[in-house]
Amino acid sequence: MSSLFLYINNQFLPATDGSLPVSDLSIQRGYALFDYLKVVNGIPLYVDDHLDRLFHSAEQLHLPIIHTREALKDIIRQLMQHNHQPHSGIRITLTGGNSPDGYSIATPNLIISQSPLQLPTPEAVERGIKLMTYPHQRQLPHVKTTDYVMAIWLQLQVKEQGADDILYYNEASISECPRANIFMVKEGKLITPAQNILKGVIRKHVLQLAADMLPVEERDIPLQELKLAEEVFITSTTKQVLPVRQVDEVVLFKEGPGRITTQLLHLLQEQQAAQYKQAATV
Amino acid sequence: MSSLFLYINNQFLPATDGSLPVSDLSIQRGYALFDYLKVVNGIPLYVDDHLDRLFHSAEQLHLPIIHTREALKDIIRQLMQHNHQPHSGIRITLTGGNSPDGYSIATPNLIISQSPLQLPTPEAVERGIKLMTYPHQRQLPHVKTTDYVMAIWLQLQVKEQGADDILYYNEASISECPRANIFMVKEGKLITPAQNILKGVIRKHVLQLAADMLPVEERDIPLQELKLAEEVFITSTTKQVLPVRQVDEVVLFKEGPGRITTQLLHLLQEQQAAQYKQAATV
Repeated sequence: MSSLFLYINNQFLPATDGSLPVSDLSIQRGYALFDYLKVVNGIPLYVDDHLDRLFHSAEQLHLPIIHTREALKDIIRQLMQHNHQPHSGIRITLTGGNSPDGYSIATPNLIISQSPLQLPTPEAVERGIKLMTYPHQRQLPHVKTTDYVMAIWLQLQVKEQGADDILYYNEASISECPRANIFMVKEGKLITPAQNILKGVIRKHVLQLAADMLPVEERDIPLQELKLAEEVFITSTTKQVLPVRQVDEVVLFKEGPGRITTQLLHLLQEQQAAQYKQAATV
Repeated sequence: MSSLFLYINNQFLPATDGSLPVSDLSIQRGYALFDYLKVVNGIPLYVDDHLDRLFHSAEQLHLPIIHTREALKDIIRQLMQHNHQPHSGIRITLTGGNSPDGYSIATPNLIISQSPLQLPTPEAVERGIKLMTYPHQRQLPHVKTTDYVMAIWLQLQVKEQGADDILYYNEASISECPRANIFMVKEGKLITPAQNILKGVIRKHVLQLAADMLPVEERDIPLQELKLAEEVFITSTTKQVLPVRQVDEVVLFKEGPGRITTQLLHLLQEQQAAQYKQAATV
């Protein structure tokens, strides 16, 4: 990261010089939001989807964004010119601002940073991941806040259990992983939770891609039903479509990921390739 | 605040120069904790209670504190010498540190800051406050994290309802205000929730002071039971013992706060006065 630049409140600075006053409400009270998009072959993907969600999160948290959508895209372009990182992630963070009393919302601080990105290798996809379930419901789940207290706190248990990630559930149903959505294939249908989740950009596109292949349902999924699924996978900007091999002690596959999961990953990769090929010819 | 100093990672700096790198896990993922104690007549009160809780919070969040208890007390003393604020609050904040990947815990950043403090005036005590109830349960409630996302987010509703603060509850019982504990007097007993709360320092001392006056119970309190209470008050370092005049639409008193509430506030004030008088004679 040390040679990269970031953008903070109208300035481009070396990333290591980017800082916020301790009075910022993100430090004082954990009050901030962000979005994260990926750059592949020099092209930022699904930018409008991410900006849609960023503006939605900001409105929900009562934090004004003074920039227009086009101004934000322009900052992203300039940042990419500074950093020369054709495969990377771009994070846009908006905080509660430098609060005079440590509790009231002030003028938000805006940070846009870029960092290296490694997508899952073919070997990681073939192996799949193990999820550890945990009873928890994220607060304001439809807003991409910076609240990952529970996820970070659980990392020790994740390691102890030899898991790769966490799956939150409540009495009625599963919801999501801390940074990913979850899907299952069951009796020829693709099913994913509809509520109490952050609706991911990749989730949206996987649902659209799947609609031509098989019936799709958005509904509550009890944890016990998930453990009987034929295929399970998670989706996110960094994980794409990543097969789930195991949920707690239940092994879902031993011989590699299922057919639907694999097809959806390929369709998603083709969709993304089409985006950066098209951009390259403009 | 502008002329005050703060302590950050072994340095005393003007408070306006205190900052954290944007890679700090408090900014990236809301992962941080703090404690807050008050200074009255130049004497910090209940210091060991607050440091007990600080070390407990840090252990729970897997964040090491490299300073001993005595070293922290010494920093507080030095900070007070810099700032000359005989009536003030001191906040000790410990964050997840400058995380290389924005997700893993790193070496914590430690900030100790001081700010002006105004305790409730006699008029504010006489008037009492109005609480707006809201269904929510804080995550990791026994740890004093910086997670106040819900409380900050609700401030607009608090204003719209003409309320002064929020009271969280779930299906079974009330828990706490975002920054205070709650008590009720009913049929000659003092009752306060026992679980799913942050156990406040003033809560502990009020329970001890009350034990000589009347029977005391720590148990679940359904919201409907609270609304039938004879007296209700909240406790915190900044609010001391503050009477509750109204919960949602239920008015609990019109003629000033109840006898037990008033007595407990006086006992607490005497206890605190004894601390700074004793310290002044040492």
